[in-house]
Amino acid sequence: MRERLGVPLAPEVVEYIVRPRSDHLDRDFRLMMLINRAHAIMLARQDILTRQTVRTLLNALGELEAEGVESLDRDPGPEDLYSTMERALIRRVGADAGGRLHTGRSRNDLGSTLTRMAVRERFLSFLDPLLELREVILEHAQEHVETVMPGYTHLQPAQPTTLGHYLVSVALATQRDSDRLLEAYPRLNLSPLGACAFAGTGFPIDRQLTADLLGFDGIVESTTDAVASRDYVNEVLAAVAGLGVTLSRLAQDLYLWCSDEWGTMEVASEVAFSSSIMPQKKNPGTLEHIKAKAGHLIGALTSSLTVQKGLNFMHCRDMSLESVDPLWDALTQGEAMIVLTRITVAGLEVNKELMLRRAAEDFCTATELADILVREKGLPFRTSHSIVGNAVASALEQGLRANAITAEMIGRAAVEVSGQLITLTPDQVDRALDPVQNLAGKRASGSPSAPETERLIGLASASLSHHRDTLNGWRQRQERAAEGLNRAAQLN
Amino acid sequence: MRERLGVPLAPEVVEYIVRPRSDHLDRDFRLMMLINRAHAIMLARQDILTRQTVRTLLNALGELEAEGVESLDRDPGPEDLYSTMERALIRRVGADAGGRLHTGRSRNDLGSTLTRMAVRERFLSFLDPLLELREVILEHAQEHVETVMPGYTHLQPAQPTTLGHYLVSVALATQRDSDRLLEAYPRLNLSPLGACAFAGTGFPIDRQLTADLLGFDGIVESTTDAVASRDYVNEVLAAVAGLGVTLSRLAQDLYLWCSDEWGTMEVASEVAFSSSIMPQKKNPGTLEHIKAKAGHLIGALTSSLTVQKGLNFMHCRDMSLESVDPLWDALTQGEAMIVLTRITVAGLEVNKELMLRRAAEDFCTATELADILVREKGLPFRTSHSIVGNAVASALEQGLRANAITAEMIGRAAVEVSGQLITLTPDQVDRALDPVQNLAGKRASGSPSAPETERLIGLASASLSHHRDTLNGWRQRQERAAEGLNRAAQLN
Amino acid sequence: MRERLGVPLAPEVVEYIVRPRSDHLDRDFRLMMLINRAHAIMLARQDILTRQTVRTLLNALGELEAEGVESLDRDPGPEDLYSTMERALIRRVGADAGGRLHTGRSRNDLGSTLTRMAVRERFLSFLDPLLELREVILEHAQEHVETVMPGYTHLQPAQPTTLGHYLVSVALATQRDSDRLLEAYPRLNLSPLGACAFAGTGFPIDRQLTADLLGFDGIVESTTDAVASRDYVNEVLAAVAGLGVTLSRLAQDLYLWCSDEWGTMEVASEVAFSSSIMPQKKNPGTLEHIKAKAGHLIGALTSSLTVQKGLNFMHCRDMSLESVDPLWDALTQGEAMIVLTRITVAGLEVNKELMLRRAAEDFCTATELADILVREKGLPFRTSHSIVGNAVASALEQGLRANAITAEMIGRAAVEVSGQLITLTPDQVDRALDPVQNLAGKRASGSPSAPETERLIGLASASLSHHRDTLNGWRQRQERAAEGLNRAAQLN
Amino acid sequence: MRERLGVPLAPEVVEYIVRPRSDHLDRDFRLMMLINRAHAIMLARQDILTRQTVRTLLNALGELEAEGVESLDRDPGPEDLYSTMERALIRRVGADAGGRLHTGRSRNDLGSTLTRMAVRERFLSFLDPLLELREVILEHAQEHVETVMPGYTHLQPAQPTTLGHYLVSVALATQRDSDRLLEAYPRLNLSPLGACAFAGTGFPIDRQLTADLLGFDGIVESTTDAVASRDYVNEVLAAVAGLGVTLSRLAQDLYLWCSDEWGTMEVASEVAFSSSIMPQKKNPGTLEHIKAKAGHLIGALTSSLTVQKGLNFMHCRDMSLESVDPLWDALTQGEAMIVLTRITVAGLEVNKELMLRRAAEDFCTATELADILVREKGLPFRTSHSIVGNAVASALEQGLRANAITAEMIGRAAVEVSGQLITLTPDQVDRALDPVQNLAGKRASGSPSAPETERLIGLASASLSHHRDTLNGWRQRQERAAEGLNRAAQLN
Repeated sequence: MRERLGVPLAPEVVEYIVRPRSDHLDRDFRLMMLINRAHAIMLARQDILTRQTVRTLLNALGELEAEGVESLDRDPGPEDLYSTMERALIRRVGADAGGRLHTGRSRNDLGSTLTRMAVRERFLSFLDPLLELREVILEHAQEHVETVMPGYTHLQPAQPTTLGHYLVSVALATQRDSDRLLEAYPRLNLSPLGACAFAGTGFPIDRQLTADLLGFDGIVESTTDAVASRDYVNEVLAAVAGLGVTLSRLAQDLYLWCSDEWGTMEVASEVAFSSSIMPQKKNPGTLEHIKAKAGHLIGALTSSLTVQKGLNFMHCRDMSLESVDPLWDALTQGEAMIVLTRITVAGLEVNKELMLRRAAEDFCTATELADILVREKGLPFRTSHSIVGNAVASALEQGLRANAITAEMIGRAAVEVSGQLITLTPDQVDRALDPVQNLAGKRASGSPSAPETERLIGLASASLSHHRDTLNGWRQRQERAAEGLNRAAQLN
Repeated sequence: MRERLGVPLAPEVVEYIVRPRSDHLDRDFRLMMLINRAHAIMLARQDILTRQTVRTLLNALGELEAEGVESLDRDPGPEDLYSTMERALIRRVGADAGGRLHTGRSRNDLGSTLTRMAVRERFLSFLDPLLELREVILEHAQEHVETVMPGYTHLQPAQPTTLGHYLVSVALATQRDSDRLLEAYPRLNLSPLGACAFAGTGFPIDRQLTADLLGFDGIVESTTDAVASRDYVNEVLAAVAGLGVTLSRLAQDLYLWCSDEWGTMEVASEVAFSSSIMPQKKNPGTLEHIKAKAGHLIGALTSSLTVQKGLNFMHCRDMSLESVDPLWDALTQGEAMIVLTRITVAGLEVNKELMLRRAAEDFCTATELADILVREKGLPFRTSHSIVGNAVASALEQGLRANAITAEMIGRAAVEVSGQLITLTPDQVDRALDPVQNLAGKRASGSPSAPETERLIGLASASLSHHRDTLNGWRQRQERAAEGLNRAAQLN
Repeated sequence: MRERLGVPLAPEVVEYIVRPRSDHLDRDFRLMMLINRAHAIMLARQDILTRQTVRTLLNALGELEAEGVESLDRDPGPEDLYSTMERALIRRVGADAGGRLHTGRSRNDLGSTLTRMAVRERFLSFLDPLLELREVILEHAQEHVETVMPGYTHLQPAQPTTLGHYLVSVALATQRDSDRLLEAYPRLNLSPLGACAFAGTGFPIDRQLTADLLGFDGIVESTTDAVASRDYVNEVLAAVAGLGVTLSRLAQDLYLWCSDEWGTMEVASEVAFSSSIMPQKKNPGTLEHIKAKAGHLIGALTSSLTVQKGLNFMHCRDMSLESVDPLWDALTQGEAMIVLTRITVAGLEVNKELMLRRAAEDFCTATELADILVREKGLPFRTSHSIVGNAVASALEQGLRANAITAEMIGRAAVEVSGQLITLTPDQVDRALDPVQNLAGKRASGSPSAPETERLIGLASASLSHHRDTLNGWRQRQERAAEGLNRAAQLN
Repeated sequence: MRERLGVPLAPEVVEYIVRPRSDHLDRDFRLMMLINRAHAIMLARQDILTRQTVRTLLNALGELEAEGVESLDRDPGPEDLYSTMERALIRRVGADAGGRLHTGRSRNDLGSTLTRMAVRERFLSFLDPLLELREVILEHAQEHVETVMPGYTHLQPAQPTTLGHYLVSVALATQRDSDRLLEAYPRLNLSPLGACAFAGTGFPIDRQLTADLLGFDGIVESTTDAVASRDYVNEVLAAVAGLGVTLSRLAQDLYLWCSDEWGTMEVASEVAFSSSIMPQKKNPGTLEHIKAKAGHLIGALTSSLTVQKGLNFMHCRDMSLESVDPLWDALTQGEAMIVLTRITVAGLEVNKELMLRRAAEDFCTATELADILVREKGLPFRTSHSIVGNAVASALEQGLRANAITAEMIGRAAVEVSGQLITLTPDQVDRALDPVQNLAGKRASGSPSAPETERLIGLASASLSHHRDTLNGWRQRQERAAEGLNRAAQLN
């Protein structure tokens, strides 16, 4: 192909551009062969090549594939895998057949198609552990529907909640992250093949046919757009970065809860790291990696967007190669996050007793005390808030914990704040200050009472099933396409 | 509210945290009043407050609203707009009524709701200029369906195309950007109200009712998730950044085409900048701002994701306030990009003659010459590619332009490359080298022939109509909700 | 200036480009006037303009300045502040004098100079609170040189340390951040004036003279570079982002230590936020804002770098205007971080007793126990690590805290691990398990013993003084330059 | 070491955390051995271990090193390279000697030291190609000191300049980028060794001695800071990203100049890519990769900063491992940029004739025409600007190029604009419109006249020499340290 140029690529170009692209050579070769077969079949069906020529091509492609990418002459002279492969094909069957395979296409649309197929494959394999993680979180949510713990705002004890409600809330956030990921698929799974260099072709090719044979849901309509755009890369990266942020937040909570000071949880020894000098150590290392990987995902997104910014709207190597590069590492990092989160959550030991005691003692029941004054004594909320605030402050002064607050203390505070005497019964006070009863009353939609938590788990499970079905549907579509391609290749 | 704390906020906190948040005070006050009314109506319907109390509250809220946010005592003592407003309310109607409005809610869910309403409003107003831009691009695409120009890959002349095909391709990319934006809306338009601090409430509130009254499509199911998450912010920012990248690419192309060297286009004087010392200057400044703003949008996305990374999964100010902040400027910058692109595209003067001449001369027709050898002489593509490569090289050596290539030169090249004599007629050569005829043959799906370009314009127009309808539907839903709220407020 | 263009700017250009640039109009006007005076003086000294003309210009400039920027006709027709100002000047003294001021310069170098002066001014004012913060941290470090607390790795208790050592360590990190900031100044404080549009000028201007008069340390040597580059913006943004990361880490530690579970610190009520419904709350809100602002600083850096990426190496509006824009908000956010950190640290209440008790109980003294076996019993470190690990495990099993470990338990563990009997005296064990004695022995360079901590504080204080002197030197240089400019203006 | 944990790491932890860290195993093993030797020597000198023990250790370490990292048992049970190595050491010489090597240190300071040594090594090797690139750019600047070309602002022809001035301007920008890189070294080249887990040690170690033996310029003073901070990573990444932006700008200019429309340059065939279907193609692919890699560098910087944001100020795996990871790929990408830029610039073919003709024709001499009216006719600049603007406009209307402007046309414009008759001689007009004479007059500091350009080249060359000397000095320091370590190891 370099006739016009007359010289091979400089060794520096080979070293810094061509060679680093051989990381995924097996995959790329395999996918290129699928595309070659689909394209050859289409050329025959459209009478662009003779059936005889196409049969020769398909046989030769089959042989090359059987020998594998390693058997190709890896002389760095050619610019890329395609030129190497075409050269091998021509050596095998001569220029008259081998030189015809590239009719009605170009490396631009070929590369664009191959990348989408590679991303699609990796995308689907990425979803499995994600769905598995969501399932594990929901199982633990179910297990802990009644596991009371203090809930926090601003990292201060706020009100009682349950570990189950916490976990299903995180699950619902990862569900939205998954929604966004899945919504990227229909835009990703479109075929650029037949766009050629960018301007389509005068050969009467059938773009829909090759799309079908390769398992695409349709074609990228404009031939220019088909080779000039990689916005599906950004879209996937943005969705994965969002997921990364969600998981980093879960990891941050667990990180604190596993601290000696919180002490409400402990990671399993299998996911803990020791110290080379501190014999007492059990370090929750996986959580640190999970948190960090969110940073890498944000960096990968920045990278791809920044590469694309200001490029001419045309095919070019910054778009076709460099803008896609961050995706592979990001999906590896993202998968690591997901799996590490799963095994860490699955192995957590939870100190329920301590969590319940904290919830009773750390004043997170004070709101309920204020609410009771509203509900049972008819006070305006703002007034009851002031009264309880006053009682809490005096309890703190005396070094008392929340469950030591008495009806009498409330009465005193009421007089001080509002001038009125207000009498709660000891039982009313106890009920308010008991986190379990407190939670039982939280019946408003989506609140942490057990029935509402279970309703949320139901919603999340339904979404998980739905996502599983969607994923299975996509997989079946791929398998059917692969079979169809095989059948079509044999008939020819 | 600061009873427990006993002291006002430090002046530095007021200066660096409270005061900078008053940028959108009018909007926030207006939206807070809507929420107050919806919440009050619900409290009455659910018999949590008496109808009498609610009537008092609604009247007082109406008066406060009529007087406007400026009439509130802006003493920086209180922590935020809500506390200021509640204080004014209590001053007006006394603690017994005024102190009851906040029953069954908290500043956390109130703030989360208010932010979603503000984002929703801005989001809808952002879509209008975007749809208008897409329309303008499509109009120009239609106008230039037959305006031939050289098409580029790697910024080198590649094959002939048309300005119309180029523009509709960009339009299709902005359509995907719009799709992603619009897909964010259903996740954005959900009500957190009633989540209270995060743990819901024991008052028998009706979250669905307030959601309806405020024009939401549903509720954020989990009360924890409702106050702890702002992932819709990232989603909108990612979609806008993607759009920014697309527009920066269009701007970059126009920037080159308006150069003296390209000279195929000129921006209108209304959007050009002059020089204070160079009298000949007509600088296409809007294109520079468009390109740059894509960078700001990427920065805003990075900012919000980075703020959120590693936060505990709970309500906190980094999430509720800081993570949202980048959105406002980003939407302003994004709107600027859109409008500047629209007026720049609308005013472009196009030198059709020059573009056509370039397409004829700059060798971008060479592929068609190779294709003709395949189609009409039965050569394998790789062989014909070599022959034409040889002929191009010798033309360049002789200083000839593409349209000076003759049948004889092809014949000579064929002998040199393949040893065979190949004779094309002068007419065959002329047809191949004529970009207009060349393009007419590009009939494969999505190629730049006129009929295919018009088909693409049709697809893009249909999507535009569909997006318009969707947007109108959302607007009508908002208007109906506003009327419903008004009616409900009067009945109470 | 728009003679060649013939029409005013489109209203959209005014709205989206010209108008948003008027945020810093007062500052820009003031600085432009300084540049005008310095340039005029130079033109006279170099005999490019007559003394008479320059006197006329200086008088008129003085009058315009006295009237202020508000008195300028803010008709949006002109493109920017410069054209407005020149028009006013010409109205006042006629075209013959007023039209000569711009001799030997252009808006490009003028703008580049003005921006550097504005950044320089803001940069210096930014350093004051930073140095103040470092001082406050060091004061608290000094106060807590002997305040024992558990030190952490992986958020698990690791070894005893002191709050003083922790704080001076953070101070040393902010010192490096400051070093990087200060190193940016010499590259920032260079004058682009006289570069004109980019190609210099044939007028015999003296660039060094205007640089001196305006307080610059020298000139940006190449005229092209002078208008085409803004890399000092990235450099400052990177340094500020690095500082932001450091402060976010300090904030994260304080955030945990102020939690109910840690309970070792409490923020002052003046910097705490209350809850509208939870009466017990004291939320450390400033820490949340500090953490978040680091995210905004990273976003601002990304923004500026991304805007600049791939720009032609020439003057253009993406570089001269847009790439600088993120700096202003970033310095505001950075200053907020600094001040909020200062007042939060200054107001911290520390529970020394609790920290000491934790350090004694939470096994962070185990390493010292292992070290004693090495030092006093001659065991290899790895063996002693195993023995203590065994003893710790059995203490944890029995629910004992660290300070309940006895010489006997160590003896038992030694037999189990190594088969050998090892006898420590109770006193040896007590010494090892006492965090205070433990720390006293930490004499290696930079360790947390009191003498080493004080040595570190000394180093950090010396750097602080040095930075103060540097800053004062720069300020004095500016003042001298301002006086020099005044004097020169009067003499003319 | 995992005695307390009792179980090996989960297979997922090995797969996703431990295994991916073996990329640089040879390097890490080699560096760890240097640290081991320096630490052992110090332990002997300080009488912490006996000379006999240290001799045994040094011999065993020598044997292990000779056998290489491959000979280590790579059972994934241990957590990392250090534990594997220590286990092999103990197997070889028994626990009594082998178990003593780790006295007075920890994996934390060991890892922190190893990382700094690895970064230092890579940092130095990164500088060589950078300095080489600067030299190549300066050589070409020198070659083109008199190569006239149009200079641009806003991508419009502005004024004549030379390719030499352009190139030296870029060289001066890369010089600043290099300055920033080099300023990072003194902060990087400090030893954390002896910080142990973070709290130093009670063993009487000599941190300065190990620092010397390992070629460090000093120690990281605070033991906490020594293991908790990696800000030098961000600093290097920021400097490299800045360099990337500069090179992307050069690449963008060359990309345009190599377009068919500009046609003023052509890349060498060795760095060009062909097309698989367009026979005429010579695609400047290296320039596309250069531009893109700037995006990756910005992403890597974002990644590292974001990972670090909000971490506790302590040793943790997100800081010690993950925050450093982006550096390696970034330096690879950065080196690729540098080398690709060098070979691309070195091979450029420049069409001097065309550039000169453009400079004469494209109106970029208009400013000089205005300046001549000021200098030779005493007109105010603003008036002369208007007159020339008018003349340019009428030339454009008549389809004339700049060098067709006559004295008469200027005269007519003068009357029209100012009512005055102004007569330039044809010679005056010709001189102004001749870009060569025009440039000869550009004598102000840093302007593109030949003498000033050569002065700039001199400045840039001096800086290059200075940077070379600095780099050599650092290298020699490393070599001396390596020899010293060898000598010290033999003596023991």
